[in-house]
Amino acid sequence: MKIIKTIEEMKSISRDIYFDKKTMGLVPTMGYLHEGHKSLIAKAKEDNDLVVVSIFVNPTQFAPEEDLENYPRDLQRDAKICEELKVDYIFHPKEGDMYRENFSTFVVPGENMTDIMCGVTRPAHFKGVCTVLTKIFNIVSPQKAYFGEKDIQQLAIVKRMVEDMNFDIDIVGCPIVREDDGLAKSSRNTYLDSSQRKAATILRKSILRAKEMIDSGEKDAIRVQASIIEMIEEEPLAKIDYIEILDFETFERLKIIQKRTLISMAVYIGKTRLIDNMVIDLND
Amino acid sequence: MKIIKTIEEMKSISRDIYFDKKTMGLVPTMGYLHEGHKSLIAKAKEDNDLVVVSIFVNPTQFAPEEDLENYPRDLQRDAKICEELKVDYIFHPKEGDMYRENFSTFVVPGENMTDIMCGVTRPAHFKGVCTVLTKIFNIVSPQKAYFGEKDIQQLAIVKRMVEDMNFDIDIVGCPIVREDDGLAKSSRNTYLDSSQRKAATILRKSILRAKEMIDSGEKDAIRVQASIIEMIEEEPLAKIDYIEILDFETFERLKIIQKRTLISMAVYIGKTRLIDNMVIDLND
Repeated sequence: MKIIKTIEEMKSISRDIYFDKKTMGLVPTMGYLHEGHKSLIAKAKEDNDLVVVSIFVNPTQFAPEEDLENYPRDLQRDAKICEELKVDYIFHPKEGDMYRENFSTFVVPGENMTDIMCGVTRPAHFKGVCTVLTKIFNIVSPQKAYFGEKDIQQLAIVKRMVEDMNFDIDIVGCPIVREDDGLAKSSRNTYLDSSQRKAATILRKSILRAKEMIDSGEKDAIRVQASIIEMIEEEPLAKIDYIEILDFETFERLKIIQKRTLISMAVYIGKTRLIDNMVIDLND
Repeated sequence: MKIIKTIEEMKSISRDIYFDKKTMGLVPTMGYLHEGHKSLIAKAKEDNDLVVVSIFVNPTQFAPEEDLENYPRDLQRDAKICEELKVDYIFHPKEGDMYRENFSTFVVPGENMTDIMCGVTRPAHFKGVCTVLTKIFNIVSPQKAYFGEKDIQQLAIVKRMVEDMNFDIDIVGCPIVREDDGLAKSSRNTYLDSSQRKAATILRKSILRAKEMIDSGEKDAIRVQASIIEMIEEEPLAKIDYIEILDFETFERLKIIQKRTLISMAVYIGKTRLIDNMVIDLND
């Protein structure tokens, strides 16, 4: 495995791989790899001749008051994980190379996809995500790129961007990886102390309760949402950011549970903001 | 020469050319080709194994009140010109294929580059230009793309976008092509009646007068600008949109003429908006 630190070297390697007609899978990350990332890498290894993991804590997707400085970083540990998973290249560019002097162009997703869920409190977040991914896609030229279904809004926005911009890249969504007690894996889980860690299970539990209600025949989205809110509000360490029940394709808010319904939430546990979701297919 | 009308066919041809390690030059146009375009195509033929001319009247760079519907179109005539110039492919996609249902992602250049000159009266214009070019670049994958220096602001914005987004494309600027009386060639010149056509020479004349002043030692940008304004205002059919005297690199407004000074203007002749510019290098 090789760690590539310059854009030029990465471009040159990508070109060679492309001319060799080998397939390349990209797993874009901000590092501090956990089981979620590992599952993306494993899927990428299955599907492609070569795998590139990009590790770049992207400043343009953080708001000024967000945790850019405190975002956990450990390249040595990440490199070890990638080595074990037989990743071929880590692309780890410098911030000053990715955002050079006079940088001013951004890729901006449509408001219809960003003015709900995580976009409400993080208005410029997905603009930063789309911008850095456009750059990384152009540098790495992968055939496929892998994203977790945990950030379901990001997955939908990236798919839309790739279609809109005519990138020749297949965006592959991978299932959420969970701890034994159901908490979705995340770098941010390291911020939680032990009582917070226990409280954090409320996200998954409230979604499972909602699924039970729907499985038992409940069709009223407002009643399902109310049950989730009630359950989370009973947890003193939890504070709801949003609970949404949406059409999975269009992100429109639902009154009636329908064929493909997305239950999506963000909840603060202490100061740590956690997200989780489930797509409920009534044909299941 | 072949006219390609679908994105998929163009992508497939581009891939084959890339694997053959042949170089491809792109001349992006909105059609109704004139001498200006011909000079870009000639330069592209010189530099590359193969040349693609894209012809697409891009709706996202027109404002609702602008002349999208009346923009001149004549594919048969354009095809004949391209044939004569030994163009290899015309890429002529359908509007509905370029902007499919639910299209919502845009590439947005920085305000510092768009809030002056043509951007003032056409605030979304360069957003449309950057968006469609990102799409065409991804579909055609050229090594080089050719732009006229007539739209000097577009050239600067596209160069910035290509650098910011890490496209592997060399943006080549080509000199303005003019009629015998100095009028810069443009598709819009066909809108002019004979008295307007005569009046339109005032753009070039006023720039040449400004150059004379500077050559004679004038350093005061305001005085140079005033001379241009005075000359154009004497022409009854002309109405100034803007006259700018700028630093060529940063687009900052100048008080003192300096090393590389950009004189740039947009002037209405009747209802037709014409642009022209000159970069004055004091080392000349």
